[in-house]
Amino acid sequence: MPITPRAADYNQWYLDVIDQGGLVDDSPVRGCKVLKPHGYGIWEEIQRDLDRRIKETGHVNAYFPLFIPMSFLSREAAHVEGFAKEAALVTHHRLRARKDGRGVEPDPESVLDEPLVIRPTSETVIWHMYGRWIDSWRDLPLLINQWANVVRWEMKTRPFLRTTEFLWQEGHTAHATEAEAREEALRMLDVYAAFCAETLALPVVRGRKSSVERFAGAVDTYTIEALMQNGWALQGGTSHFLGQNFAKAFDVTFQNQDGVRDLVWATSWGVTTRLVGAIVMSHSDDAGLVLPPKVAPIQVVIVPVYKTEERSVVLEAVERLRRALGVRFRVKVDDRDHLRPGAKYFEWEQKGVPLRLEVGPRDVAKGAALARKRSGGDKFPVPFEAAEVLVGEVLDAMQAELLARATAFRDARTTSVSSLEELGERVESEPGFLRVPWGGDDADEERIKEATKATLRCHPLESESVAGLTCPLTGKPAREWALFDRAY
Amino acid sequence: MPITPRAADYNQWYLDVIDQGGLVDDSPVRGCKVLKPHGYGIWEEIQRDLDRRIKETGHVNAYFPLFIPMSFLSREAAHVEGFAKEAALVTHHRLRARKDGRGVEPDPESVLDEPLVIRPTSETVIWHMYGRWIDSWRDLPLLINQWANVVRWEMKTRPFLRTTEFLWQEGHTAHATEAEAREEALRMLDVYAAFCAETLALPVVRGRKSSVERFAGAVDTYTIEALMQNGWALQGGTSHFLGQNFAKAFDVTFQNQDGVRDLVWATSWGVTTRLVGAIVMSHSDDAGLVLPPKVAPIQVVIVPVYKTEERSVVLEAVERLRRALGVRFRVKVDDRDHLRPGAKYFEWEQKGVPLRLEVGPRDVAKGAALARKRSGGDKFPVPFEAAEVLVGEVLDAMQAELLARATAFRDARTTSVSSLEELGERVESEPGFLRVPWGGDDADEERIKEATKATLRCHPLESESVAGLTCPLTGKPAREWALFDRAY
Repeated sequence: MPITPRAADYNQWYLDVIDQGGLVDDSPVRGCKVLKPHGYGIWEEIQRDLDRRIKETGHVNAYFPLFIPMSFLSREAAHVEGFAKEAALVTHHRLRARKDGRGVEPDPESVLDEPLVIRPTSETVIWHMYGRWIDSWRDLPLLINQWANVVRWEMKTRPFLRTTEFLWQEGHTAHATEAEAREEALRMLDVYAAFCAETLALPVVRGRKSSVERFAGAVDTYTIEALMQNGWALQGGTSHFLGQNFAKAFDVTFQNQDGVRDLVWATSWGVTTRLVGAIVMSHSDDAGLVLPPKVAPIQVVIVPVYKTEERSVVLEAVERLRRALGVRFRVKVDDRDHLRPGAKYFEWEQKGVPLRLEVGPRDVAKGAALARKRSGGDKFPVPFEAAEVLVGEVLDAMQAELLARATAFRDARTTSVSSLEELGERVESEPGFLRVPWGGDDADEERIKEATKATLRCHPLESESVAGLTCPLTGKPAREWALFDRAY
Repeated sequence: MPITPRAADYNQWYLDVIDQGGLVDDSPVRGCKVLKPHGYGIWEEIQRDLDRRIKETGHVNAYFPLFIPMSFLSREAAHVEGFAKEAALVTHHRLRARKDGRGVEPDPESVLDEPLVIRPTSETVIWHMYGRWIDSWRDLPLLINQWANVVRWEMKTRPFLRTTEFLWQEGHTAHATEAEAREEALRMLDVYAAFCAETLALPVVRGRKSSVERFAGAVDTYTIEALMQNGWALQGGTSHFLGQNFAKAFDVTFQNQDGVRDLVWATSWGVTTRLVGAIVMSHSDDAGLVLPPKVAPIQVVIVPVYKTEERSVVLEAVERLRRALGVRFRVKVDDRDHLRPGAKYFEWEQKGVPLRLEVGPRDVAKGAALARKRSGGDKFPVPFEAAEVLVGEVLDAMQAELLARATAFRDARTTSVSSLEELGERVESEPGFLRVPWGGDDADEERIKEATKATLRCHPLESESVAGLTCPLTGKPAREWALFDRAY
């Protein structure tokens, strides 16, 4: 199936790339997608790399229940406000046969005393547990992460970017001091930013959210914002300084070193399967998926090319090559007999495999495979003898190339606007990170969103002074830099 | 806190070991436990090792939705019969503020058209998807595994062994022929048995379940059965040959090589966090947890021992040792200043860390740490120079020792019974695998369970002929060997 070109219809292109790339499929449940092996494989590589980074910064993993008592959500006022409208609720625990013999129905005698919410995020249940685990300053900091599924009932869904059920990691930490908790929130933001750049080839802007866009229950929300090829922004992950809000809600205190009881300080931070969508939209092209080598489930595909009588000599060379490369790389040999080489090239291109190696009888004779990078360029020979080293270099170069390309695009599309009118026009004609010395308040921000569809993505952490500048969107004196853009 | 000795109260011992070992805690939701970092860490090691084995046998991972439409369960008659009584049901998708201002309640306007079952197992939703993915013999075999949480509403729970929510992997495969599917079901049983022996130091008996104990929807259920220290059996995992039952229920056919459409053959297989309970009960002792080195989240704990003025010289040696061992092993340095060494030894013993290394000023002078194996024996020196090699040998030896010990116990407790009376007595006085040349039917099996609390654990795959033998429990001619025991 051909893929709609980006220029023709960017949204359809995204759906086509995902579909032809074999990443997801519709499930029988509204808003829930099936992550097919190739799509889930990208998530596995994300998990492997990010989990290492989370552990290297001193965190350990644990697992908390899927179910949250309904009353827990109400304990923190902003939190319940934020999540009540998308809460999936378990109310019964048994099915019974229908009297008319047509299937089953919820057994009315199995109604729960209190409904259970499927976790939309786990602050409440985790802070309930932290209340049991924290008693003294010696119990702090508590640095726990969880890999889990969460559910937020979404009316408008888009694969990877917004689905009712999604996969994520959520870190939840408890600290003795405000300074330490604030430092942790920023540390994890940096971990995310480094992970995105180094592993996903995604350059991100680190920033602070406005109060309008803040997490329900946070004092400060930090974000990493990436720019997609259509110029729209995508929030890649968030890290929250929660102050003492959840400690108050769940009465979590500790005895400090002076023997006085004090409320505990908190952070939480998470990234989700939406990162897979960010990768797809940042790097792919009109021929389909392009995957950064570090997260490609298959890094190298070897396609043997032969007529029947050449089969054994070719397959023998291919098997030697596979073994040589298999030690360091994720390698697939496509030895399907019922497909022609051209059909295989087409399929692996659509699946975004970074490097293809063709091996025919002439290549065997020459002692070199013919290679093609998914990111473009001419075919080139890869001598069997030097394959492991050369493939490593090619994949590293491709990883760097994708990051450089995305960074150049991001930088070119980071510009200023000098009026509200210009913002409105630019968001339509050439969206991107639109820099503004911002002086507005929440009401201004909401009004601009209504008028232009642009949202205040973040206040970048690294910004110059705005002293003396006037906000072009509100005419008020500027307080700090802001990036505006349309966003997913 | 002291641990109740096994001889005094085996059940309380199990709960104490888990509690003092820091493996789980009660959650605010009935029947759901929190897996604390040390408990979840064991599961992470299980995942890492088993995931590799599952992939080495040609399977790939994917992710299917948490929610299953209620009507899907009814499609397979035996399946709904087996799971209807423990189904958690989502019926609403929104909360609203209560009129009395006291918290929130399910919004009656958000009732779902069809309730959703939280997956108790995923055959139904997966076979619905397989119906979309399978069309030709070229699409087969389809070999997919999923790591996920599942929910079965349990009235009587026990940490790890039986909880409402638990973690597991579930493999679901589709095949063109019955022979291939039967082979796959047995192959995965062998993968489980090898994994248990090699990684968990758990010797298991591979067998086939009786029809009474068969999985709801299976044609044949295979099982691995382990023996706990109290002589009770524990089902460690199951592998099902599902025949064409789910293909029929979800209308999944394929065009075979002769151009004819045929129903697809299926297997499914899974192991759960209950394996952590099996490890605990097989290897631990009255001092607490004993963990096989291969799944211990911390394999080596180093405890520095010093007076204030010796601190820097000791910690320097400890840090060198940590770095030398950290390359190959999971190492923890316990440098907490507010605890005495004795308290630390006690804590790490209760947490089952396989090897403890003490380093004091005299040890630094001698160039060797003082080591103690969690499985017993005298302390012995570990020269810093040879630490990596020596620790590797000690951990390997301990892994082998635990398996040998458990195997010897299992073999000693595998015996015959010659009458129903003896079965009843033995199950009370000295339970174990009780071998019987079995000739009974389902009714006999149910009657024996009522009378003795013993269940037919399995028909062992490796058994001699029963030709000419009479079943001592029923007086009928024996058909095949069976193991009876009390079970978790």
